[in-house]
Amino acid sequence: MVRKLQVAVSGLGRMGARHARHFLERTPRAELVAAFDPSPEAQAWGKQHLEPYGTKLYTDYDEMLKHPGLEAVVVAGITTEHAAQTVQAIEADKHVLCEKPLSTKVEICEDVLGAAQRKPHLKVLCGFSRRFDASYRDAFAKMTNGEIGRPTIMRSQTCDKFRNDDYFVKYAKFSGGIFVDANVHDIDLALWFFGQDSIVKSVTAVGVTARYPDLKQYGDVDNGVAIVEFWGGRVAYFFSSRMMMAGQQDTTEVIGTHGKITINANPAFNLVEMHELGGVRREVDQTYYDRFEQAFVTESNEFTECILDDKELPFKLSGAIQAVKIGCAMVESLQTGKKLDFDETGAQILEKARL
Amino acid sequence: MVRKLQVAVSGLGRMGARHARHFLERTPRAELVAAFDPSPEAQAWGKQHLEPYGTKLYTDYDEMLKHPGLEAVVVAGITTEHAAQTVQAIEADKHVLCEKPLSTKVEICEDVLGAAQRKPHLKVLCGFSRRFDASYRDAFAKMTNGEIGRPTIMRSQTCDKFRNDDYFVKYAKFSGGIFVDANVHDIDLALWFFGQDSIVKSVTAVGVTARYPDLKQYGDVDNGVAIVEFWGGRVAYFFSSRMMMAGQQDTTEVIGTHGKITINANPAFNLVEMHELGGVRREVDQTYYDRFEQAFVTESNEFTECILDDKELPFKLSGAIQAVKIGCAMVESLQTGKKLDFDETGAQILEKARL
Amino acid sequence: MVRKLQVAVSGLGRMGARHARHFLERTPRAELVAAFDPSPEAQAWGKQHLEPYGTKLYTDYDEMLKHPGLEAVVVAGITTEHAAQTVQAIEADKHVLCEKPLSTKVEICEDVLGAAQRKPHLKVLCGFSRRFDASYRDAFAKMTNGEIGRPTIMRSQTCDKFRNDDYFVKYAKFSGGIFVDANVHDIDLALWFFGQDSIVKSVTAVGVTARYPDLKQYGDVDNGVAIVEFWGGRVAYFFSSRMMMAGQQDTTEVIGTHGKITINANPAFNLVEMHELGGVRREVDQTYYDRFEQAFVTESNEFTECILDDKELPFKLSGAIQAVKIGCAMVESLQTGKKLDFDETGAQILEKARL
Amino acid sequence: MVRKLQVAVSGLGRMGARHARHFLERTPRAELVAAFDPSPEAQAWGKQHLEPYGTKLYTDYDEMLKHPGLEAVVVAGITTEHAAQTVQAIEADKHVLCEKPLSTKVEICEDVLGAAQRKPHLKVLCGFSRRFDASYRDAFAKMTNGEIGRPTIMRSQTCDKFRNDDYFVKYAKFSGGIFVDANVHDIDLALWFFGQDSIVKSVTAVGVTARYPDLKQYGDVDNGVAIVEFWGGRVAYFFSSRMMMAGQQDTTEVIGTHGKITINANPAFNLVEMHELGGVRREVDQTYYDRFEQAFVTESNEFTECILDDKELPFKLSGAIQAVKIGCAMVESLQTGKKLDFDETGAQILEKARL
Repeated sequence: MVRKLQVAVSGLGRMGARHARHFLERTPRAELVAAFDPSPEAQAWGKQHLEPYGTKLYTDYDEMLKHPGLEAVVVAGITTEHAAQTVQAIEADKHVLCEKPLSTKVEICEDVLGAAQRKPHLKVLCGFSRRFDASYRDAFAKMTNGEIGRPTIMRSQTCDKFRNDDYFVKYAKFSGGIFVDANVHDIDLALWFFGQDSIVKSVTAVGVTARYPDLKQYGDVDNGVAIVEFWGGRVAYFFSSRMMMAGQQDTTEVIGTHGKITINANPAFNLVEMHELGGVRREVDQTYYDRFEQAFVTESNEFTECILDDKELPFKLSGAIQAVKIGCAMVESLQTGKKLDFDETGAQILEKARL
Repeated sequence: MVRKLQVAVSGLGRMGARHARHFLERTPRAELVAAFDPSPEAQAWGKQHLEPYGTKLYTDYDEMLKHPGLEAVVVAGITTEHAAQTVQAIEADKHVLCEKPLSTKVEICEDVLGAAQRKPHLKVLCGFSRRFDASYRDAFAKMTNGEIGRPTIMRSQTCDKFRNDDYFVKYAKFSGGIFVDANVHDIDLALWFFGQDSIVKSVTAVGVTARYPDLKQYGDVDNGVAIVEFWGGRVAYFFSSRMMMAGQQDTTEVIGTHGKITINANPAFNLVEMHELGGVRREVDQTYYDRFEQAFVTESNEFTECILDDKELPFKLSGAIQAVKIGCAMVESLQTGKKLDFDETGAQILEKARL
Repeated sequence: MVRKLQVAVSGLGRMGARHARHFLERTPRAELVAAFDPSPEAQAWGKQHLEPYGTKLYTDYDEMLKHPGLEAVVVAGITTEHAAQTVQAIEADKHVLCEKPLSTKVEICEDVLGAAQRKPHLKVLCGFSRRFDASYRDAFAKMTNGEIGRPTIMRSQTCDKFRNDDYFVKYAKFSGGIFVDANVHDIDLALWFFGQDSIVKSVTAVGVTARYPDLKQYGDVDNGVAIVEFWGGRVAYFFSSRMMMAGQQDTTEVIGTHGKITINANPAFNLVEMHELGGVRREVDQTYYDRFEQAFVTESNEFTECILDDKELPFKLSGAIQAVKIGCAMVESLQTGKKLDFDETGAQILEKARL
Repeated sequence: MVRKLQVAVSGLGRMGARHARHFLERTPRAELVAAFDPSPEAQAWGKQHLEPYGTKLYTDYDEMLKHPGLEAVVVAGITTEHAAQTVQAIEADKHVLCEKPLSTKVEICEDVLGAAQRKPHLKVLCGFSRRFDASYRDAFAKMTNGEIGRPTIMRSQTCDKFRNDDYFVKYAKFSGGIFVDANVHDIDLALWFFGQDSIVKSVTAVGVTARYPDLKQYGDVDNGVAIVEFWGGRVAYFFSSRMMMAGQQDTTEVIGTHGKITINANPAFNLVEMHELGGVRREVDQTYYDRFEQAFVTESNEFTECILDDKELPFKLSGAIQAVKIGCAMVESLQTGKKLDFDETGAQILEKARL
């Protein structure tokens, strides 16, 4: 029989439960041997959906890390625990797939990076799902193939469907704000398509609260617009929103000197169109998971494959940290009302320095 | 000053009034000098919209034909008068643009053709508006340019928006039925794209009455499907309907050995899209005129130009008659429940001949 | 540990290998315990891709049926073996998922049906993949929900990408011809959407050979058009082609009295669009499997679930046979040049009966 | 006979010649009585295309203003003459339709406004063609009708097709730069959709030269991105480019609290789609005029109607000046690298004031 990767999932909330099922049911080369979540609901869910298939449930993270033969951990619990659990798993010599963000704070991200760098034989991946999406990959391949010339401008947006409850407000307390929580994906795309070593030249962000005025207490907004200039003649501009009515709308345009690629410019839930009074209508994805389910599954499989076959991960942990850094600069720009400038080494040029 | 074509319009009903305005306002090289319609409503409309701009109104068609300097007549009144008025105008030595159909009866069409052939210096045009539509022309040019190889299969449909009244039923009395009234445009397209001298091999038509059961009294249907085989390895198949909910949907596909062209596969009223609860929606054209307004204007201008500059008309009158012939065969197939076969000269093979 | 369905696959050719992997990797409640294919290539492939995961390989079908604990067989080898293998499996008391078609001959299909009916406790499914496709299911649900009124007209097509080799010609020898091989899916959709007990009123089919003249030796065509009338005021019309240049294009329209649903009217391979010299371009699926991969996986899972939980299959075996019957009538119409008529019991009205 | 507006056109270059023909051929209630352009080519063109239809040609602007009975002037010559000619025409008591921009300098715009305000009985219109476009108007009507709630975010772009010559570089000398030349249309849309009295809160603009490095000598760029915040919780963000490969792509999104409207998110030249090797492709408009031809014709007709029937113009001259002001602020932001802030009265907050 072939060797299968021995994986555990930490956190069986919405995203954690999905990761668990992806590893259990849709990652042929992995075996979900353990899962950790102290909450009674999660334990109950795990007893029904995981235990019968051979997954051992834990209520203690340390204990789970000691599960015999465990090789890798998926960190998918509450955001504020991401960094600590990741570091702990690294120190226990486990490979880690950590849900984004590692942290909403740059210094903490850097601590994780440091821990990972001390164990270079381990695979530590931060889950930027779009990197595993077939359409983004096709676009990247076409760009690399020269089909649009030199990529110059990127427009990218992460827009959630409006929710008629206080979810987004409650969530804002921990999320780091719309730029760090939502646009961080778009920033990561810019770093991917423009090159991981792109150096930021300036960051400007503005925003409004149109549907959730209570976001103001957290310095957050429900619609944000930002421009990030990079040294070398490139510009990315971003939009994020929490008030789409039709559904989730994550769209990216990469404008090159000789052509343009769009990804999901025309969102569609499936292949059905209705011709009815009022015109022609199609439904669109309602959630992030509707849009990226297959990307998450690809992520599980590639993470597994990289470990089993000792391949390089598709992108570096340091890139994830660079994306958080830029997201945090966007938050600073929003909150101070200032454009932030950076020199050609990427160091921020402070206001007084300019006088 | 330049010479302008002296034109008259016969009939100021819905389509006639539009023709009048097209010649008055949107055909720079023509002058609408006269208009005929005996109905009081039409006279009143003409007094307001035509007379102030120099158009003389008539209540007698013969009188109008004697209007000093008159060169051309647009026959756009009731269908049952089309043929007689066209012949009369030809005999009075006028060029004629006759709204389709010349007649719903093949023999009468042939009488008109005979009259026209006796006056070869006159331009006699039957108004198949799609022949003047920019998208159909672009498709034809691309096909002629070899972009899809040899055209082999055509799918074409003429589908009206559902009307919550008895218009379609009343109209069926004179229209010749859905195949002659609506699909005649699609048949004409087949003759255009496959070649005007294409010879029919077989005709099969079926249909149902789904929304207007009263159509049955006229042997008509509100949804029709037909196949027309042509000798030489070509097939056209057609759909027509009177019950579209979103709007008018006239779509054509030309499938060649090396590619496919679609025309209006994705109908849209304008460039607006709504993102709203339920998805993404666009409106579509509501009527035939919404879709083909500009084609009608092009028709007026080209008819004018062909006369003034003595150019050849873009297609022959005989083609219009061939389209009616095929439409009538479809009606016969529908009503008899039989597939009609034709030999390589286009002559019908009768049932007994086959025994 | 939970019970998993013990499944074997017969045939490891293109489609069989896919079924094997679907059961092995993407059907959590099933275990692929055995596979049969006598060809050395298939054995080699199985040794590499199946054996390491615990699947036992067989070169003898009878032996495989005796695999200890085997519960279900997927029949996916050469078409001409489908029926015999299915019957044999049924007689060995196994559940069967048989790739379409059971047979291209109606009588043989009926033999299989008979065998299945003698073992009513077994689940015997014929793989009409579109029945498992999420978009078709959504369309069916919307229709059932009354969103388009009474379904009246169906247009459906199965169009393959052109292949620059003799595959389609070789394949025609066994496939039953384009109507039985390709349009059988569309016929099945008509039976699904119009109701499984719809009774055929007439069948007319025509076709041409535009790219593969050698198809004529098998009485087959590379482009086919057909109309199927049903008693009760419904019409389905079909197109099939082997010469699409852009890719696979399987499109369906269901036109109801109060609206229209389209499925895959705008095919797209993924979410990428290229803006380049010449315009805006998107790629489309290249093969049937590109389009329906997920439907095949759903099929595996639901077949498994129906057996394990003793649920009813989503559709009956007799329906699959009805589809083949209509497909064969289309072939007869094509080859005789005649429209075939049927009375209200579905019995064919013969020519002489009409005299 | 009805009264027709007596109109003259100044300038018979590309846009001027189009205006001349629109008034001559497609504005039924106007008569093109005079045209001015001193260049020999323009005179030659006018002799062929205008004189035969009764238009008198002038080589002296002052002389033309004295043309007997002249009521209105279309100023469509070189940009640097727009303001002077407009003022002169106003002083000669003529109504004026001036091509955009009045001037690329705010003070000069204000001089024109002053001249117009001294003659309140005259209609003075600055030609923002999108205001006359049917799709934009439909979007505005739907928004006004409450279909998207409160408009909050606008994304709008004006993107030209790449030209393989030095046109854009030469043009930059006079155009005021990409923000004033191209995005001024988008700014005007923001003022239209957000309300003409919206007050700017901040302006940030960045840009690059990717295809036309020679633009740098004029402080211009070939790709620009900008954010304009308005007081009251609204944000507009803009993109402009001179290097589209597929064609002209002017797209606008209006994101409201309860829905989103897009205008031209899916540009198309006509209704043709090609299915070919490589996928499905449609062409897009190549030029601004391809996209907005009908809007220009509507402009001519409405300008005429407003004068003849003494109706209010669809928007005020002062709005055009506000758009230029914002465009100039974008240029300043681009060139200084600074975000410009404005107080609630719209007055700029200077750097030192912030210290």
